[in-house]
Amino acid sequence: MSLPDLGHRTDYRIYYEDTDAAGMVYYANYLKFAERARTEWLRSLGFEQSLLLKDEGIGFVVHHCEIDFLKPAKLDDLITLETRLQELGKVRMTMQQVVKRGDTILAELSVGLACVDRNSKPVRWPQALISALEK
Amino acid sequence: MSLPDLGHRTDYRIYYEDTDAAGMVYYANYLKFAERARTEWLRSLGFEQSLLLKDEGIGFVVHHCEIDFLKPAKLDDLITLETRLQELGKVRMTMQQVVKRGDTILAELSVGLACVDRNSKPVRWPQALISALEK
Amino acid sequence: MSLPDLGHRTDYRIYYEDTDAAGMVYYANYLKFAERARTEWLRSLGFEQSLLLKDEGIGFVVHHCEIDFLKPAKLDDLITLETRLQELGKVRMTMQQVVKRGDTILAELSVGLACVDRNSKPVRWPQALISALEK
Amino acid sequence: MSLPDLGHRTDYRIYYEDTDAAGMVYYANYLKFAERARTEWLRSLGFEQSLLLKDEGIGFVVHHCEIDFLKPAKLDDLITLETRLQELGKVRMTMQQVVKRGDTILAELSVGLACVDRNSKPVRWPQALISALEK
Repeated sequence: MSLPDLGHRTDYRIYYEDTDAAGMVYYANYLKFAERARTEWLRSLGFEQSLLLKDEGIGFVVHHCEIDFLKPAKLDDLITLETRLQELGKVRMTMQQVVKRGDTILAELSVGLACVDRNSKPVRWPQALISALEK
Repeated sequence: MSLPDLGHRTDYRIYYEDTDAAGMVYYANYLKFAERARTEWLRSLGFEQSLLLKDEGIGFVVHHCEIDFLKPAKLDDLITLETRLQELGKVRMTMQQVVKRGDTILAELSVGLACVDRNSKPVRWPQALISALEK
Repeated sequence: MSLPDLGHRTDYRIYYEDTDAAGMVYYANYLKFAERARTEWLRSLGFEQSLLLKDEGIGFVVHHCEIDFLKPAKLDDLITLETRLQELGKVRMTMQQVVKRGDTILAELSVGLACVDRNSKPVRWPQALISALEK
Repeated sequence: MSLPDLGHRTDYRIYYEDTDAAGMVYYANYLKFAERARTEWLRSLGFEQSLLLKDEGIGFVVHHCEIDFLKPAKLDDLITLETRLQELGKVRMTMQQVVKRGDTILAELSVGLACVDRNSKPVRWPQALISALEK
């Protein structure tokens, strides 16, 4: 399936909660920013995860995540997350995400997501989501 | 109701995840240690929160929390949480918790808990818990 | 010292990272939102914590915190933090913070802050901060 | 360099702080458990990160991380982290980490670490660490 470039940008400020005693953003916290950004990307397409769970009984789970940490983000930095759908399968999708401070790339992520029902069983993406992505 | 001293001790190591760029444990994280300690105190009485929720449909929620931060904990510190039931009402209880490094008191907490059902409505403590506490 | 009403508002979206298995925002995480809001209040007055630390060698530490949890915030909620200086002493200040969803109050905090140097010793608030607050 | 199997095991309890509204451990938190486990692996070899930073001016930073999420961990689970050095280079090392609940594998991580000085510049691993690893 040919897909448009769905690059989506969100900005986040770095607070004390994000940093650690080494004076930088703690490595696990980049995954928090990435999840916030994917949620906003989804919201920009018209979908809200709490409603998808309540109304359709489905959720998105990360089954694979790969991250390269290139440069550290620090307290009070304003970082940008660029989120892009790379590949869409029947029950899985791969997202590319880049963390930047201005033009400097701080981290790059590849995130594999699956659609699951309330029992954690893989199900197909909702047709409405496919349609929104194909637009 | 007269209650025995239920002082309960648990130890925790400070990791990078607990600290912030000021080189100390981030203030909100003391509440995480306190919740871990209350959970272990409950477990020592024979109760597990996931089972209470699944089998009895009840949960414990914090409705009030007061904390004095006296001295900072730092990376690699081994801290001790002392947890004590101070007052037990019909639908509420107050816990006293002290955070120590050796004999040095780092923080003191007073935590008000309520028993609620699946709809967040206050309910009485389970009789089995009252009995365990009166022992 | 008579102080103006420095009510300051910031909005935050609730993401999965903020919630727990009870389906609500984990209690410690309200302190994260409160700290983000105090940081933005300070930034609105012209001060950035990383610069205060680097240039003046001072930091703000929380020495006391009291919080009433009234109603839970949930996934995808948009919450508002209202932040107000209540009392300003020579080396301490007390902030009042309210967490709302629309007009509904979810939590109320009273936070005691102290100004400290690099060795965690209390020092007076910088004169520039006093001046900004008196404006 | 031929290296012995340095498999190291640490156990962690899952608390509310680790879970999210989907009822499982939040995906970023596996990286916290992994970092705790690597710290304990290092401590078992006689090294403490806060001392390495203070005395030798060096720290360990994660430059790459890959994680497969196979099955979710839930509230009150007791999980085991198995930590193993896979490859040791001059300024980098690769660790393999497995998250288990009993015999069930929940997640698998490959973590690339680098040794850096106070200015985030790559430096060689301390000779004492090499010696401890070769034992």
